[in-house]
Amino acid sequence: MRKKIIQEILDNKSKFISGEELSKKLGISRTAVWKHIKSLREEGYNIESVNKKGYRLIEKPDDLLTYDNIYHNLHTKILGKKIIHFDTIDSTNDYAKKIGNEESEGAVIISEEQTKGRGRLGRNWHSNSYEGIWMSIILKPNIVPYKAPFITLIAGASIVEALNKLGVNAKIKWPNDIILNEKKICGILTELSAEIERINHIVLGIGINVKTMEFSQEICDVATSLYKENYIVSRVDIVRNILLEFESLYLEYINNNSKEKVLDICRRHSAIIGKEIYTIRGEEKELVRCLDINEEGNLIIKRNDGSIKEIISGEISIRGIKGYV
Amino acid sequence: MRKKIIQEILDNKSKFISGEELSKKLGISRTAVWKHIKSLREEGYNIESVNKKGYRLIEKPDDLLTYDNIYHNLHTKILGKKIIHFDTIDSTNDYAKKIGNEESEGAVIISEEQTKGRGRLGRNWHSNSYEGIWMSIILKPNIVPYKAPFITLIAGASIVEALNKLGVNAKIKWPNDIILNEKKICGILTELSAEIERINHIVLGIGINVKTMEFSQEICDVATSLYKENYIVSRVDIVRNILLEFESLYLEYINNNSKEKVLDICRRHSAIIGKEIYTIRGEEKELVRCLDINEEGNLIIKRNDGSIKEIISGEISIRGIKGYV
Repeated sequence: MRKKIIQEILDNKSKFISGEELSKKLGISRTAVWKHIKSLREEGYNIESVNKKGYRLIEKPDDLLTYDNIYHNLHTKILGKKIIHFDTIDSTNDYAKKIGNEESEGAVIISEEQTKGRGRLGRNWHSNSYEGIWMSIILKPNIVPYKAPFITLIAGASIVEALNKLGVNAKIKWPNDIILNEKKICGILTELSAEIERINHIVLGIGINVKTMEFSQEICDVATSLYKENYIVSRVDIVRNILLEFESLYLEYINNNSKEKVLDICRRHSAIIGKEIYTIRGEEKELVRCLDINEEGNLIIKRNDGSIKEIISGEISIRGIKGYV
Repeated sequence: MRKKIIQEILDNKSKFISGEELSKKLGISRTAVWKHIKSLREEGYNIESVNKKGYRLIEKPDDLLTYDNIYHNLHTKILGKKIIHFDTIDSTNDYAKKIGNEESEGAVIISEEQTKGRGRLGRNWHSNSYEGIWMSIILKPNIVPYKAPFITLIAGASIVEALNKLGVNAKIKWPNDIILNEKKICGILTELSAEIERINHIVLGIGINVKTMEFSQEICDVATSLYKENYIVSRVDIVRNILLEFESLYLEYINNNSKEKVLDICRRHSAIIGKEIYTIRGEEKELVRCLDINEEGNLIIKRNDGSIKEIISGEISIRGIKGYV
């Protein structure tokens, strides 16, 4: 009911809507309407009320990553129909993994802060309050598990598309990092729970540094944020754009096994194709030239001896020669 | 300490060991020895005590799948060093998945009964008290996730080897069922928790019908048990053999990427190679001839039009033409 009231008031934009009209539309008493308005105000909605005119929204709570802010008029079919929002949590991926089997596909877990944010391989991920987007999406694709790694590429493509549409010239470092001005602004942590024959659920974790201005010493040379690179973009807009872009590319892959658009985006916005990179396996570090991403989504490289090699996502780490992550 | 006393008494077999000797060997008082003996008796150990001779084990608790029974003199390096034994539990796989990240590799969860035993694809698995072996093994191989399905084949090979060594002529229906006299006696349910680049943990679930004489109507035509097929084998012996066989083949694969022995066992004891089978994908059912298992562990079949096809584990269901599962 709270959500419906917000919807009505948001739909009405800067016009007044009377308590009577709200009460009729929603089938609740005017006292109930008044109580909901009161609790919305307590949450930070600035709602004007004028005698004989009714209610009018002046301002929503500032860019919080709540369901109300994100889902309003978002035209997705499955993504974000449910958004579980936390002020703080240990890790959105860990929470999503716990509820993954019970929750429906497309549920989004999002927190203003993570106290134990994780990156790849169990590394820490700095996730201070309001500074970024720390979210996890629950997916239940009806595909065999070995086709799951491509979903990381879909996520990368969606994030880059979403950011580009907001004027941010981000690039993809295959397979799961997003780069801005040669530093990392976003990591993708895809986690899989599966039987051999079917996927139970996938948790797609996305961490984007938006407003962070200070990074710890270990990562300050390789990490950056949108604000730090002078892109002032709304977190809500980024999330909304990502959900939209991702859903479209994801459904194309799941329903039609179509990878074209994703591969096209990954190639056009690649941070590494055509460049020299290091491939790293354990202690071994090799300088190679990155040629392309093939139809399977695997990386094609050329070694120093001229031989061509295909790298499967996860087999090897790669690092750009300028040292970015 | 309890375990050490059991060990000493078991090692001594049918000979007496004096309270004094036990007390010296274990560095505890004779009163403490006596107290431990008392509590062992309460648990069902039949321990004779004769004045001036000492203690002698007459009988252990009847074939319970406890650590004491299973691990005694078992020469494994990692498997079964920890065995968590339940009288009853919902599902050993579910429990193992919950503790998978914290627990060490090789931990075994085993229950005399499962109230919500699961087979593949969320199907029920009948797991009555003492009637079978319902266990899950936690594995943490340092391999990339797409190499995980082979572990199901390793499990199948180990189980068949273990049973064959106990005189049971079991066969493997690729990739994850064990067949006896054309009926199913064992299913393997491998579950994976992974990032794209690394495995968090694998839970290898093994369910073996040992003493079951009655099966529910839906499965009585396709399921059987060892006892029903007139093989009277100790559950403890089966578990011990499986842990031994599995560890050896598993370490070969993880450490040396060696698949030879597993593939050899899977081929020699295959229930389907050389036979006609149905491949089933959704509603589509196709009669094909099963030719071989290739180096990757994938099934090679010949279709009616003469074309040869490789089936990746999990892509498709298969069914023998006589109707067994």
